[in-house]
Amino acid sequence: MYRTHNCGELRMSHEGTEVILSGWVQKSRDLGGLTFVDLRDRYGITQLVFNMDENEDLTSKARKLGREFVIKATGIVRERSSKNAKRETGDIEIDVTALEILNVAKTPPFTIDDDTDGGEELRMTYRYLDLRRTPLQRNLIFRSQLAIETRKYLSDQGFIEVETPSLIKSTPEGARDFVVPSRMNPGEFYALPQSPQTFKQILMVGGLDKYFQIVKCYRDEDLRADRQPEFTQIDCEMSFVTRDQILDTFEGLTKSLFKSMLDIELEDFPKMSYDEAMERYGSDKPDVRFGMEFVDFSSIAKGKGFPVFDSAEFVAGICAKGISETYSNKDIKKLTEWLQRPQIGCKGLVYVKVNGNGTFKSSVGKFYSDEELAKWVKLAGAEPGDMMLLLCGEKEKTQKQLNELRLEMGRRLGLMDPKVFKPLWVIDFPLLEWDEDSERFHAMHHPFTAPKKEDEQRMLNGDHETMKALRADAYDLVINGSEIGGGSVRIHDRDLQSKNFDLLGFTKEEAEAQFGFLLGAFEYGAPPHGGIAFGFDRLNAVMNGQNSIRDFIAFPKNTSGRDMMIDAPSPVSQAQLDELSLNLQEKEQTDKC
Amino acid sequence: MYRTHNCGELRMSHEGTEVILSGWVQKSRDLGGLTFVDLRDRYGITQLVFNMDENEDLTSKARKLGREFVIKATGIVRERSSKNAKRETGDIEIDVTALEILNVAKTPPFTIDDDTDGGEELRMTYRYLDLRRTPLQRNLIFRSQLAIETRKYLSDQGFIEVETPSLIKSTPEGARDFVVPSRMNPGEFYALPQSPQTFKQILMVGGLDKYFQIVKCYRDEDLRADRQPEFTQIDCEMSFVTRDQILDTFEGLTKSLFKSMLDIELEDFPKMSYDEAMERYGSDKPDVRFGMEFVDFSSIAKGKGFPVFDSAEFVAGICAKGISETYSNKDIKKLTEWLQRPQIGCKGLVYVKVNGNGTFKSSVGKFYSDEELAKWVKLAGAEPGDMMLLLCGEKEKTQKQLNELRLEMGRRLGLMDPKVFKPLWVIDFPLLEWDEDSERFHAMHHPFTAPKKEDEQRMLNGDHETMKALRADAYDLVINGSEIGGGSVRIHDRDLQSKNFDLLGFTKEEAEAQFGFLLGAFEYGAPPHGGIAFGFDRLNAVMNGQNSIRDFIAFPKNTSGRDMMIDAPSPVSQAQLDELSLNLQEKEQTDKC
Repeated sequence: MYRTHNCGELRMSHEGTEVILSGWVQKSRDLGGLTFVDLRDRYGITQLVFNMDENEDLTSKARKLGREFVIKATGIVRERSSKNAKRETGDIEIDVTALEILNVAKTPPFTIDDDTDGGEELRMTYRYLDLRRTPLQRNLIFRSQLAIETRKYLSDQGFIEVETPSLIKSTPEGARDFVVPSRMNPGEFYALPQSPQTFKQILMVGGLDKYFQIVKCYRDEDLRADRQPEFTQIDCEMSFVTRDQILDTFEGLTKSLFKSMLDIELEDFPKMSYDEAMERYGSDKPDVRFGMEFVDFSSIAKGKGFPVFDSAEFVAGICAKGISETYSNKDIKKLTEWLQRPQIGCKGLVYVKVNGNGTFKSSVGKFYSDEELAKWVKLAGAEPGDMMLLLCGEKEKTQKQLNELRLEMGRRLGLMDPKVFKPLWVIDFPLLEWDEDSERFHAMHHPFTAPKKEDEQRMLNGDHETMKALRADAYDLVINGSEIGGGSVRIHDRDLQSKNFDLLGFTKEEAEAQFGFLLGAFEYGAPPHGGIAFGFDRLNAVMNGQNSIRDFIAFPKNTSGRDMMIDAPSPVSQAQLDELSLNLQEKEQTDKC
Repeated sequence: MYRTHNCGELRMSHEGTEVILSGWVQKSRDLGGLTFVDLRDRYGITQLVFNMDENEDLTSKARKLGREFVIKATGIVRERSSKNAKRETGDIEIDVTALEILNVAKTPPFTIDDDTDGGEELRMTYRYLDLRRTPLQRNLIFRSQLAIETRKYLSDQGFIEVETPSLIKSTPEGARDFVVPSRMNPGEFYALPQSPQTFKQILMVGGLDKYFQIVKCYRDEDLRADRQPEFTQIDCEMSFVTRDQILDTFEGLTKSLFKSMLDIELEDFPKMSYDEAMERYGSDKPDVRFGMEFVDFSSIAKGKGFPVFDSAEFVAGICAKGISETYSNKDIKKLTEWLQRPQIGCKGLVYVKVNGNGTFKSSVGKFYSDEELAKWVKLAGAEPGDMMLLLCGEKEKTQKQLNELRLEMGRRLGLMDPKVFKPLWVIDFPLLEWDEDSERFHAMHHPFTAPKKEDEQRMLNGDHETMKALRADAYDLVINGSEIGGGSVRIHDRDLQSKNFDLLGFTKEEAEAQFGFLLGAFEYGAPPHGGIAFGFDRLNAVMNGQNSIRDFIAFPKNTSGRDMMIDAPSPVSQAQLDELSLNLQEKEQTDKC
């Protein structure tokens, strides 16, 4: 037997008991004739004591233990003379009577501590050591528990978890697929699913009524810092439901998860239209933990002789509370430079400080009288001590920039409390996006998203401009500025579906080639249905007030899509390629030579 | 709103209530002025009634409803005059006041009934219709619930579910990998995991202590009837445990699943060594629901002048109870032909009938006296009315053939009760298999499987013959002749591991190239650990007394690895190949022209 107890469970009530513990050597200290070893496992740390006077051989053996050695120790639980209140096992220690080294260990390249000295590359290469750290273990345990609570809630609501296939068919639409060559069907490929979208709709046609799945999805995109080529979704679909029934169901799920995992009671989620979100926050995923909502100054700031504003389509700003005296010229200069970086691309920043005595200090003071500025102040609801920050330009671009500015000011002013959670539904997204380059519409969500009921007739009969204004019965769940989930009511009417394909520029043949099996299924009695998918990695991070999803994934890949630990991807043999009837292209072969 | 209730929940207690139901038209019947429509959803069937005298328009509309139309019906719950005791909603019907056709349907190519008239190909092509059938829905609901119970049990035991990656590294050992070309790393490939084996061991090195995952795995094998290229495992690993602690844990899981899913209390699982299983049943996955154990007649049947037996290495048989009078010469001839098919390859069959009066009738009567045969009878424990069936030849081959004969007789005699479950652990598998062709050892389980403690020294020091006799600390869970799970204690000692690689013919460089990251991890303090993986698809089928796993998979592939519904795999565009730096090989391109 390797252990009678784990390293986190012994208490004073065990005093005098003989126990066996196994684990890793966290650290050891020699103090006079005594040697103390901290023994660690997933459950905690227990102090072992060896006494040179009582057992010289044993204590000498203990003194040779290196960090991360795996040992088994037998001994008696004793009360500690100097207790450690910070540790749950801190009242006791083990007076060791026998020691077995189960495995030795090389010295780890970084410390196995909550705050490790290892950089991210190193930690990913030695992920098995990184995983020994408490924060990472806590994250993985949280994730495991979150999945359990999710499944419990949904199955209590009558949802069935159905595994959909992951070797499916490649479709050229949307993001890029990972493909898998088929040996048995030479020249043909499977694709890994970007989502189980079509399969969950098929399941509704199949009468499953309520489906969910916590499922791996794959997307071969150029990876941004916080994207992974494989990621996990909570994927759901329901039949015979209205939009609000869907939202209620998944609002219920979200509330239940926050309650069971964090003991937080979320209030009812407000619904905000896409248009309103853009007007107020310049973003379809607004962080509503704090205000600083957009103020449209266009009507009062234009036409007063300031050429930059006069020539701009849109002048808007935010009001940062209580910083007019603390934000120096240097701070403002730095902020301006931050805004002028190519990622954001502002031309400049206009500010108006409302001084404590009610006077103003502004970068555009020579163009606007105090009387004029007083109108701005009134419009923005600014008070003495506040500072207004204004941007201008094309409306859409300026909204995006001002959104970045608002979020940055939120961060700088500490308004994003990681312990506060403000969810909302963003609804009524545009159905179609017009792409100027290709001169065609794209589906904002996907080609099966239904228009809102009141837009159906306009969709069937309207002109080009009408199409741009169509609203979809689509929705996103946003928490603290992160899109946690998104979905839609689907089209189940064939006329609407065929009109939608027309609008998206699909010929009948193209629609058939790409979605033939789903369109076929729709011929045999599709029920009204709709659903949602949650980003499970992101949900974990957001619930823990963290930005990076990587620390919630056991074995993440880096931004080149590479697993640093196993060193994948890697070349395969020509024999393997021959079996798959594939060759590498010459160029690449040459590059490798 | 589409419904106030589902089609399975209305009872007499709802009489007089106005309800809304939605679902599919199962069938409709016109009887005089009345039209009856059976409305179906996942939850059941409810009868709708339309009365021509009361509402002509509505009833005319109802008469036009086709099979599988999707409708919404509003009406009042009434007591039925002729009740249907076989249906849970059979006491009531809905007196319909409003009818909306939500979607029309083409006539399905097969009937949506428990016993459908659709062949397997057709059912797979129209899987969305097949899925509407109650047996299939029941299977998927069972599967969903089995996963929930599995997760509940394991997480109650302190196991953490960790998602391991599915874009990993290809290794030439073992079965064939599916590979995934990497666009970002031209000429390089990921592999889809055949199992998370190395990752779960890494998680143990990472201190996770108890890991599980219900996970998709992939194997590019030529598919037998009941194999799928993607399949699901319950994958588990534990640290600081002995073999028996592992077996107890997963015996506990299995018992708990049978109790919660089927209300069956399984008795403690017997343990049987591989050698014993081969001697008694000629199989490492014996079906022990019935006896007919092997009897070794070699010592008493050889050397008596029957040349066929005299020249055979091994003579063995089984005793089939109570069929000596019913099994005709024709039956025996047919059975012999069945045994002579190339799949089994027997030369012939010898039988001895023990007649009711204690006399014998045998195909080898002229070689053996009644006195001799009486010895056979005694050895086999045969009684009047029984028939002994004997085969002979090389030992291993004969064991396999006799296993097939035993199973066939079990089937023919109805001894395989699908409602009876007889689990057992088969243990002490050989560690290594000697392959005559390649003149090298193969790992019977995998290269990280530990030898039994008592074999460790012999493994480090023994000769070639000793190696053949080494036993592994490996085990299979067998239920009713199906291998449900398999696993092993892993090697955590570096000397043993390096000896094992030697035996398997790996150079140090080859071991490093294939398992480098795991061997690296083992340098940093690997704990003693072991685990198991259950075939989840198979477990579902076995628990339901069924042979085919396909009916427990929502979207299975056929034996060519093809998804008949979505028609995958399929060709991809040259543009996609170019992005992946791949070309199809000429031969295949020509074949396609």
